[in-house]
Amino acid sequence: MTTELITGIRELTTQAGDGARLRGAALVIEGGRIAWMGPAAEAPAADRRTDVGGRAALPGWVDTHTHLVFAGDRAAEFEARMAGQRYEAGGINTTVQATRAATEEQLIGNAARLRREAEAQGTTFLETKTGYGLDLESETRSASAAAAVADVVSYLGAHVVPQGVDRRDYLDLVIGPMLAAVAPFVQYIDAFCEAGAFDVEETREVLLAGRAAGLGLRVHGNQLGFSGGVRLAVELGAASVDHCNHLEAADIDALASSSTVATLLPACDLSTREPFPPARRLLDAGASIALATNCNPGTSYTTSMPYCVATAVLQMGLTIEEAVCAATRGAARAVGREHGTDAVGSLRVGGLADLQVLDAPSVAHLAYRPGVPLTAAVWRRGVRLEFGHRGV
Amino acid sequence: MTTELITGIRELTTQAGDGARLRGAALVIEGGRIAWMGPAAEAPAADRRTDVGGRAALPGWVDTHTHLVFAGDRAAEFEARMAGQRYEAGGINTTVQATRAATEEQLIGNAARLRREAEAQGTTFLETKTGYGLDLESETRSASAAAAVADVVSYLGAHVVPQGVDRRDYLDLVIGPMLAAVAPFVQYIDAFCEAGAFDVEETREVLLAGRAAGLGLRVHGNQLGFSGGVRLAVELGAASVDHCNHLEAADIDALASSSTVATLLPACDLSTREPFPPARRLLDAGASIALATNCNPGTSYTTSMPYCVATAVLQMGLTIEEAVCAATRGAARAVGREHGTDAVGSLRVGGLADLQVLDAPSVAHLAYRPGVPLTAAVWRRGVRLEFGHRGV
Ligand SMILES: [Zn+2]
Ligand SMILES: [Zn+2]
Repeated sequence: MTTELITGIRELTTQAGDGARLRGAALVIEGGRIAWMGPAAEAPAADRRTDVGGRAALPGWVDTHTHLVFAGDRAAEFEARMAGQRYEAGGINTTVQATRAATEEQLIGNAARLRREAEAQGTTFLETKTGYGLDLESETRSASAAAAVADVVSYLGAHVVPQGVDRRDYLDLVIGPMLAAVAPFVQYIDAFCEAGAFDVEETREVLLAGRAAGLGLRVHGNQLGFSGGVRLAVELGAASVDHCNHLEAADIDALASSSTVATLLPACDLSTREPFPPARRLLDAGASIALATNCNPGTSYTTSMPYCVATAVLQMGLTIEEAVCAATRGAARAVGREHGTDAVGSLRVGGLADLQVLDAPSVAHLAYRPGVPLTAAVWRRGVRLEFGHRGV
Repeated sequence: MTTELITGIRELTTQAGDGARLRGAALVIEGGRIAWMGPAAEAPAADRRTDVGGRAALPGWVDTHTHLVFAGDRAAEFEARMAGQRYEAGGINTTVQATRAATEEQLIGNAARLRREAEAQGTTFLETKTGYGLDLESETRSASAAAAVADVVSYLGAHVVPQGVDRRDYLDLVIGPMLAAVAPFVQYIDAFCEAGAFDVEETREVLLAGRAAGLGLRVHGNQLGFSGGVRLAVELGAASVDHCNHLEAADIDALASSSTVATLLPACDLSTREPFPPARRLLDAGASIALATNCNPGTSYTTSMPYCVATAVLQMGLTIEEAVCAATRGAARAVGREHGTDAVGSLRVGGLADLQVLDAPSVAHLAYRPGVPLTAAVWRRGVRLEFGHRGV
């Protein structure tokens, strides 16, 4: 097996959140894994050598909340919303109709394009969801497309009740034939626990059905109000509860005394103009947090984890260490991949070689230089990713 | 002269703010200027042809407030500030010392690197300032370096009174020998009218000396409080007053009935945690606004005009049209370049061919997809800019 030495790392973050950054470091990749890490002066010989010229290196981003399986976009709706205008089109139903009309090949093509765009910004592990099919055939096609593109897939049949369908009939479909059809493609079940979507008892029914089918649990909760989603997620031991904009003290206590990760979605909050979640209070209480893009065409059409990290530091009161940790190790925890042979979100000898090099001497520049594209190089499973020309 | 046809433009913005976007457009470049614009189907023949594949095109960004002439960075200070820690180092004096110690070649190299970074994000016209030299020799070297890199240069000897120098002596230097020394390199005089820097009467003295030397006027005003800088800028007919975070109703009225542009610096506001300026009230009152990066190593180390545009839409209540206008035409007005043969910030037949193509079908995507690098191609004075590999 060929080995690659990456040297000239001015500052190497291996386990974000532990405060340690190795100065003047190097690492060796072999067989998709990290074979060695340490001071550059002590690096062993390797077949190939890449000098990153005094730049910072860190784990690749782990984006645990995206909705990449869709067709169409909603730019006109977004523009009208930003102009304070009413927009009479269908919101999520616009995307559902376009997604139902798309072939699986089209869905994969669009999702793969967005995944490549995310990778070019340092993302090396990505979750995505179903949830714009909302009928048996379209959800199954979406799950199959998601599995072709993402590292882990969540089944979000319980996104909303589709137009023209009886509520009880739809829930029976979600927990019955639809669940059975998507099961081969997905690892998690997810549900949108919010006024206008599903209440706590409906969400519980969906999650328990998923658990019975062997799936892990995730929840969209407390985005628009005190939905009860957070408490339910903790009660059922969900891996993650996502959004968390509106939290009572009891929600924070519940998260802090649980293994459920609060996944925060700052780009979505800016687009929807929800207040940011109380990230500082969550951390101070001892809860685990993650940062994710929530990439979707309605409320957060960004693939940029650097943007989320910068926003978390500049506007949510996180330190740079905390934000980088939430976008790597914390995010890994939210998909059950913090530990073990196939752990992601951290760099360790023997672990997966998923890493990025910044066009900057320090991770601090992620928030110090917001908006500037700083991704200089990305390796996934030890392979350097190539990002082509933009095609103009 | 060779001609280049740019076609396949899904949406062409020529004069942002007028609400018109041409669908299915093309344009022809000849001799650095736009020779023709119109529907793609009617485009004349040209020597070369570039099909941008259904992307949006618009004027290049006009960034009228940057401080690119400096040495060193202040990442550690930034990181400590974000962590809520006291940081005992010298703030701006750190940059002054590093700048004084740098050669002109080093200053030009650093500023040119940042200019290239800005260009890669669509900026085609750039102002920069002196202001980290603060002695006769260093300010002169800074002005010469600035003139080598920027399209227009402002003299900011009146940034702060340097450590260890008598206040009155320093003002006499700024309006006397220093002004005479920098004058060959600069078009504007600028002053920081704020508690801790210069008061209204001192600022007036500096600006009037600059005017007497034939320079245009700019002011840093009302960033940290009601400094009086805005009212003074309007009184003296300054081209622009920049920051404007703290405005009384009388400030807004004064701006609205003047030709002075209020230049807003949202990336700086996020980094310093100042409240955003009342952009919506300024526009509604009839004032002219511009958006700029304020790129500097202390309080806003970004070159990203797209980040400023996205922030203005998502967080300052501007529509996409208004934000794009403020970053192009409005900015051109702030440097006296809205009209005339060498106008920038808009596209017109006979005008300069300074334009950008987005990797998106609409300018709406600038805010709809925040953080995603969307600059697909940039032409400046008709020449396609090449952005090399990041060097890893
Ligand atoms: Zn979601
Ligand atoms: Zn400034």
